[in-house]
Amino acid sequence: MISEKMSVMVKNSSITRAMFEEGKRLAAIYGKENVYDFSLGNPSVQPPVSVKEALIDIISNEDTTFVHGYMNNSGYEDVREKIATKLNQVHGTSFHTNNIIMTVGAAGGLNVILKTLINPGDEVVTFAPFFGEYKNYADNYDAKLVVISPDKETFLPNLKELEEKLTKATKAIIVNTPNNPTGVVYSEETIIELSKVLEKKQQEFGTNIYLISDEPYRELVYGDVFVPYITKYYRNTIVGYSYSKSLSLPGERIGYLVIPTEVDDYEEIFAAASVATRILGYVNAPSLIQRVVARCLDSEVDVSVYNENRELLYGSLKEYGYSCAKPEGAFYLFVKTLEEDDKAFCEKAKKHNILIVPGSAFGCPGYCRIAYCVSKKTIEGALPHFKKLYEEYKEAEAK
Amino acid sequence: MISEKMSVMVKNSSITRAMFEEGKRLAAIYGKENVYDFSLGNPSVQPPVSVKEALIDIISNEDTTFVHGYMNNSGYEDVREKIATKLNQVHGTSFHTNNIIMTVGAAGGLNVILKTLINPGDEVVTFAPFFGEYKNYADNYDAKLVVISPDKETFLPNLKELEEKLTKATKAIIVNTPNNPTGVVYSEETIIELSKVLEKKQQEFGTNIYLISDEPYRELVYGDVFVPYITKYYRNTIVGYSYSKSLSLPGERIGYLVIPTEVDDYEEIFAAASVATRILGYVNAPSLIQRVVARCLDSEVDVSVYNENRELLYGSLKEYGYSCAKPEGAFYLFVKTLEEDDKAFCEKAKKHNILIVPGSAFGCPGYCRIAYCVSKKTIEGALPHFKKLYEEYKEAEAK
Repeated sequence: MISEKMSVMVKNSSITRAMFEEGKRLAAIYGKENVYDFSLGNPSVQPPVSVKEALIDIISNEDTTFVHGYMNNSGYEDVREKIATKLNQVHGTSFHTNNIIMTVGAAGGLNVILKTLINPGDEVVTFAPFFGEYKNYADNYDAKLVVISPDKETFLPNLKELEEKLTKATKAIIVNTPNNPTGVVYSEETIIELSKVLEKKQQEFGTNIYLISDEPYRELVYGDVFVPYITKYYRNTIVGYSYSKSLSLPGERIGYLVIPTEVDDYEEIFAAASVATRILGYVNAPSLIQRVVARCLDSEVDVSVYNENRELLYGSLKEYGYSCAKPEGAFYLFVKTLEEDDKAFCEKAKKHNILIVPGSAFGCPGYCRIAYCVSKKTIEGALPHFKKLYEEYKEAEAK
Repeated sequence: MISEKMSVMVKNSSITRAMFEEGKRLAAIYGKENVYDFSLGNPSVQPPVSVKEALIDIISNEDTTFVHGYMNNSGYEDVREKIATKLNQVHGTSFHTNNIIMTVGAAGGLNVILKTLINPGDEVVTFAPFFGEYKNYADNYDAKLVVISPDKETFLPNLKELEEKLTKATKAIIVNTPNNPTGVVYSEETIIELSKVLEKKQQEFGTNIYLISDEPYRELVYGDVFVPYITKYYRNTIVGYSYSKSLSLPGERIGYLVIPTEVDDYEEIFAAASVATRILGYVNAPSLIQRVVARCLDSEVDVSVYNENRELLYGSLKEYGYSCAKPEGAFYLFVKTLEEDDKAFCEKAKKHNILIVPGSAFGCPGYCRIAYCVSKKTIEGALPHFKKLYEEYKEAEAK
């Protein structure tokens, strides 16, 4: 008999992942080329060639017991130093080795920092729509996830409601910009306003409210969009980063936490996060790939491919009649479903072999997420089906 | 402010790891060659050459988006199938793909299966001396770790006490053979007796008691010692494995769980363990290294190197007068300390630049663990100091 918590988890198990499995099943029946799987954020763009070069050079030339061996739970010191230096160059920050903890992806990082901070009953706040796993991560540490309802005009954070919902029990707030599932990027102005609310409430309650910035999409922005580095605006900011998207390495589980020195109780938090990395059973971020990313800090994937997908898919869906805000970052479109029941809509899309995720999975019913980190061919193949799906709804309405 | 649980964890933070840090500090002062660090199970033997060959071939010839991409949370299907087939060849079992879940090392696997099984307040039983992290892993899921006291004659499991301490609340028992820290291997007879106790108590209570076999040292045995595959003796056995020692890849965090079909509630447990892998933030075992180990299933590290270390260190310590059972597996000696206070003994050893871990860290005071996965030179350098340490104690006694 499995645990009660896991029974619930299994029942509610991520719709996104179920879709991924469903995609494989349909592909086996209809052929891969006839299934349009937009369900998962699995990068379609190859890792930069520097990744391959670094891998081969390290394997060929470095000491294998070092490269595959244990290191500090927080990661290789030289790797952490290089990452700190790179962040300082790009963002004008002043991080050092002991502000960085290498993690098993951003998911690992979020769990490490929640394990570090959360007492049972603490509240963790986030803005809908949000990455559904936040709920599970909060639940791992018996925190209550407090969800701020979405602003469906802009999908920017609803700061008025935030102010109302922050309490003495608020220990952390998770912010995700560029956002999954909307692709929205918070402007500098928004970050400043958000920081003001948090500062005010910290003072009012005499508590620390840690802003956890979940940033796997930081580098995936289009045009000259500016993504503010939040540690510079709000003192109690902790950053969770991942190379899953920026270097197309999602399976490798490699990322890091930034715990700035100016954060309240920095020393305790940094020490505890290193211990949490061990205790949660990660032990350390995978070793070889730590050394690889340290050599690829100036590389990133070719974002123009995602941009072409974005333009094609966004332009076509708008033309057909769908309603959707143009995303500035990440690789998702968040589209209004053609009926209120987003799950029913996604089921109808599935009849056209189109796999997309209901907005309910992100705390925002009435919408669906289309992940466009796919081949251009998949989009081109799917477009007539998206058009037909729209026409079906219009015809049904007309009757 | 960090969480209350983590405050305690940080205070009690693994002595083993603290030693590792201390070793690096002493090395910086006295020079690496003059510090004898026996504190950590970090393999000194290089990975087999097949690991390097597999890495280079995969990186050079396989599709990079596949090799570094997401797969099912439970791991690549072909990798799991190959592992199942290999286990069947070696042990005469009949596992298939859906008995295997790839994990972030054995530590990740243990956390996944505990998350899957444990309700708060459940009891998890283990035999002292035991790997200290078991306590933290149990605590992650609010289980109570019930420790069976050590049989200091044989360091085999005390089955009489086990029988007394199993209760209706016992959800799991963690067994570790070859054992860390003693190097003891449980014989087939011991496994059969242990199974009988568990079967009897399952029937008596009408409960399921899952035996979790933590097996990172399975391949590290000396001479013709037989290590029984426990799934063949006790139906409700779940195996946690790691390639950390058998392929010298501890930093890579790669292992697997075996959840046999005959286990009670197999389907629920298998599904929940896959979900737990995701929810705990592992998401999946690192991708590239999954593909590497699948190609190296017939390889193992050169155990003769550890065997030479074992013979040299065991023989010499016995000659000097130390008291210790000869280990049959793993790469640890568990030595009686020369005073009752094992922590004080280890502090005295440190004055000779010898780093070893007090038995208290394994729930067995009055002993210390010496990890001999080090270079022969380290052992040769340390031996005169071990001798001197012994003589110091004898001189003090004589006074």
